[in-house]
Amino acid sequence: MAMTAKRVILGLMLHGAGGNMNSWRHPSGPADASVNLGFYVDQARRAESAGFGFVFVADGLYINEKSIPHFLNRFEPLTILSALATTTSRIGLAGTVSTSYSDPFTIARQFASLDLISGGRAGWNVVTTPLEGSGRNYGRPHPDHALRYEIADEYLEVTQGLWDSWDDDAFPRDRESGTFFERDKLHRLDHKGRFFQVEGPLNIQRSAQGQPVIFQAGSSEDGVKLAGKYADAVFTHSPSLEETRAFRNQVRASAVAHGRTSDEVKVLPGIHPIVGGTREEAERKYEIVRDLVSLPDALAYLGRFFDHHDFAQYDPDAPFPELGTIGENSFRSTTDRIKREARDKGLTLGEAAREAATPRPNFLGSGEEVAETIVRWVEEGAADGFIVGFPVSAEGLEDFERHVVPALEARGVYDRALAEPTLRGNLGLSRKASRHRSPAEAAAPRVSA
Amino acid sequence: MAMTAKRVILGLMLHGAGGNMNSWRHPSGPADASVNLGFYVDQARRAESAGFGFVFVADGLYINEKSIPHFLNRFEPLTILSALATTTSRIGLAGTVSTSYSDPFTIARQFASLDLISGGRAGWNVVTTPLEGSGRNYGRPHPDHALRYEIADEYLEVTQGLWDSWDDDAFPRDRESGTFFERDKLHRLDHKGRFFQVEGPLNIQRSAQGQPVIFQAGSSEDGVKLAGKYADAVFTHSPSLEETRAFRNQVRASAVAHGRTSDEVKVLPGIHPIVGGTREEAERKYEIVRDLVSLPDALAYLGRFFDHHDFAQYDPDAPFPELGTIGENSFRSTTDRIKREARDKGLTLGEAAREAATPRPNFLGSGEEVAETIVRWVEEGAADGFIVGFPVSAEGLEDFERHVVPALEARGVYDRALAEPTLRGNLGLSRKASRHRSPAEAAAPRVSA
Ligand SMILES: Cc1cc2nc3c(=O)[nH]c(=O)nc-3n(C[C@H](O)[C@H](O)[C@H](O)COP(=O)(O)O)c2cc1C
Ligand SMILES: Cc1cc2nc3c(=O)[nH]c(=O)nc-3n(C[C@H](O)[C@H](O)[C@H](O)COP(=O)(O)O)c2cc1C
Repeated sequence: MAMTAKRVILGLMLHGAGGNMNSWRHPSGPADASVNLGFYVDQARRAESAGFGFVFVADGLYINEKSIPHFLNRFEPLTILSALATTTSRIGLAGTVSTSYSDPFTIARQFASLDLISGGRAGWNVVTTPLEGSGRNYGRPHPDHALRYEIADEYLEVTQGLWDSWDDDAFPRDRESGTFFERDKLHRLDHKGRFFQVEGPLNIQRSAQGQPVIFQAGSSEDGVKLAGKYADAVFTHSPSLEETRAFRNQVRASAVAHGRTSDEVKVLPGIHPIVGGTREEAERKYEIVRDLVSLPDALAYLGRFFDHHDFAQYDPDAPFPELGTIGENSFRSTTDRIKREARDKGLTLGEAAREAATPRPNFLGSGEEVAETIVRWVEEGAADGFIVGFPVSAEGLEDFERHVVPALEARGVYDRALAEPTLRGNLGLSRKASRHRSPAEAAAPRVSA
Repeated sequence: MAMTAKRVILGLMLHGAGGNMNSWRHPSGPADASVNLGFYVDQARRAESAGFGFVFVADGLYINEKSIPHFLNRFEPLTILSALATTTSRIGLAGTVSTSYSDPFTIARQFASLDLISGGRAGWNVVTTPLEGSGRNYGRPHPDHALRYEIADEYLEVTQGLWDSWDDDAFPRDRESGTFFERDKLHRLDHKGRFFQVEGPLNIQRSAQGQPVIFQAGSSEDGVKLAGKYADAVFTHSPSLEETRAFRNQVRASAVAHGRTSDEVKVLPGIHPIVGGTREEAERKYEIVRDLVSLPDALAYLGRFFDHHDFAQYDPDAPFPELGTIGENSFRSTTDRIKREARDKGLTLGEAAREAATPRPNFLGSGEEVAETIVRWVEEGAADGFIVGFPVSAEGLEDFERHVVPALEARGVYDRALAEPTLRGNLGLSRKASRHRSPAEAAAPRVSA
């Protein structure tokens, strides 16, 4: 299948020192990366010049002393993305906010404001929050998995409604006549739902891309449903090409079931490449990264997905323990996968922990090899692109830029010049029309200057 | 009283086109100033180079078609301040967030993150939200005035507690030993109160100034109590030197009553100067600004303080109407003052509306005159400095910088070079020690690099 015209979308995960839990010990970057503004600015600028379509900031609302070190102390997504808005010019700025612990009026405003500040580059990664403990930081019980997704659905309905409060041409700001806005281009939402009552209007206009991009990052059945209904892009796992392709097909089918086209939602698996000048060099880099994590560290890492369950109590050389329902209300799609793999491959607890904490990347090798794998996943329908989260951020981005980007460009599927000024453009999506415009108007949207 | 050593603190109100409701019609700045990033960056940089200690962003959570034009469509404070953090280097960044419509865990994080991003320049203007309609955007009843202040009190207790989650030296990040943090320097809050239950810890460290600065901006008795207990700075009205001095004395007494020293809280009246090369030029500038607002516009402006009460229904030439309790649960200190002045001065409704919408500034004149008034207010104990909100932002800041700043410098009370890198420094305050340090440690705080 010739797909030379098909552009591979890349996003860069900004997660401090890296995806490896002990990446802060790796000498290639600063140990305080997760709260180091200079490091964030440098990573975002490098990503921009390497043609990444966006940076992506994950988030969490609960920590304890067992958390991954650099999660203990990190920037909050909306503030760091806003800081990056004025230090970059074309790269998209996506960040995570939970629908289980926030107010739609506030979050609609903050993303709309980021979207205006950045000239149409904002993206919101909608999550429902896996960690039970989050409820204890907000004085309410953590909603269960199904309820969280019901809340998220209504939350997105409200938010997207608020974003269309003002038509694109609602603000003539005519000094002569004194007409700042036109009354009939203002739409009050008057939402009265099961979880939210929101009158509106929002006190901010639409942006160059119409509305912030919706990312969705939960891979369960409920997550796929939500994605099909609302998402522009889906962040997911990348266990294998086949499984990821099956997942992508589900997401695309879900979009169609919700009256959209399958190309309106981009599926972007998270990958964790390790690249070298040669395959051998990449292998050596992987060994160094792997050896940053001791067995006790790996067991603690595993526990993180299971409500900080204490895996040190078991024999690491015995088979993966029976856990009953532990963790079911948290990272469900992840815990299901860990349990399934341990069973299928007959892993000991120690092996499963190492596999969780320092998996051998399925994108490992020379630049040519990794580029080839990337193109294959896209050509074979497993992905529209990738969210790239290096095990070690500093070294990882440098190697990727040096070895993989030129190889992708040579294959004609990638261009390091970002041609589009908005995140929707970078994702190959068109401007989001307002729900209040007729289809004819929407086809040729007038934008106020 | 010779006070040449006493530095006058100045903050710049960033409120789009200006404080005049129709300032967007003034030709000196862009009509879309309230959503114009370039304008905000330019104003902040000019203020920084003119020696202002901070910029200040007000906010509101409810609009309708009667709102002040540029309040209909403006940046959200935390996002715009974060964007300004990377385009300025020493000026403080203060913004408004309501304790009535937000979660302390979230707001503590966002301000702490802004504080780290900016190198210790964040300030939070704590408000309780005057507008009744705000409740309708958040699906809950608007709490009454007294209850709002009770919530605010507990909210600040929680937030400041969260900000001390980690001691200054909690993160050795020693790569050799693998010690990222020290367990005994982590403090869980475990707050269980009337309004909030928050376990903690916060997932972000303290900043160069220890904690974000607390501004307080309600001038009622409850507001003064809250300020005495928590505030580093108070934003208030400036009806006259005498009244403002009396207010400042109340705030200082309130601080002492709460076990603090009176100099720990700076009182910063809001002023709206109009400056010219000569007094006559300033008068002419005032007339232009005044004439931007028609009588119907002025009546609508007045209505804003009284829950959007429709003042057009009355005869503007009749005495100020009896309003009963209308507006009592909103901007109470402001509505009390408007009613009192109308009664005392025997104003008609039209006159009261014009007085509210386009008051003749008590800081109007040549640079020398305005500088002299500023110094007099400080020397006579009415203020520690001012929050300067020009009726027309673009022209106002330029004139102030050209005419007033040199006159203040010549008097030896002002220096356009910002000597301190933090907002606390700019306010003449010392670093905020953690509640978990002994007094001896607090006197010589160790800061991790
Ligand atoms: C690839 C991926 C990335 C995620 N990123 C975040 C995140 O940054 N923050 C967060 O709170 N949850 C994150 N989640 C968790 C989900 O939002 C969700 O709460 C959890 O996975 C349970 O939903 P699921 O069973 O549909 O996957 C992520 C999930 C996936 C699959
Ligand atoms: C000088 C001043 C500035 C204020 N700024 C804001 C603001 O930016 N946003 C807001 O919602 N309320 C603001 N307020 C309102 C107060 O927070 C408060 O809700 C209201 O004035 C009632 O409190 P009070 O009676 O103590 O003044 C301000 C009040 C004053 C006096």
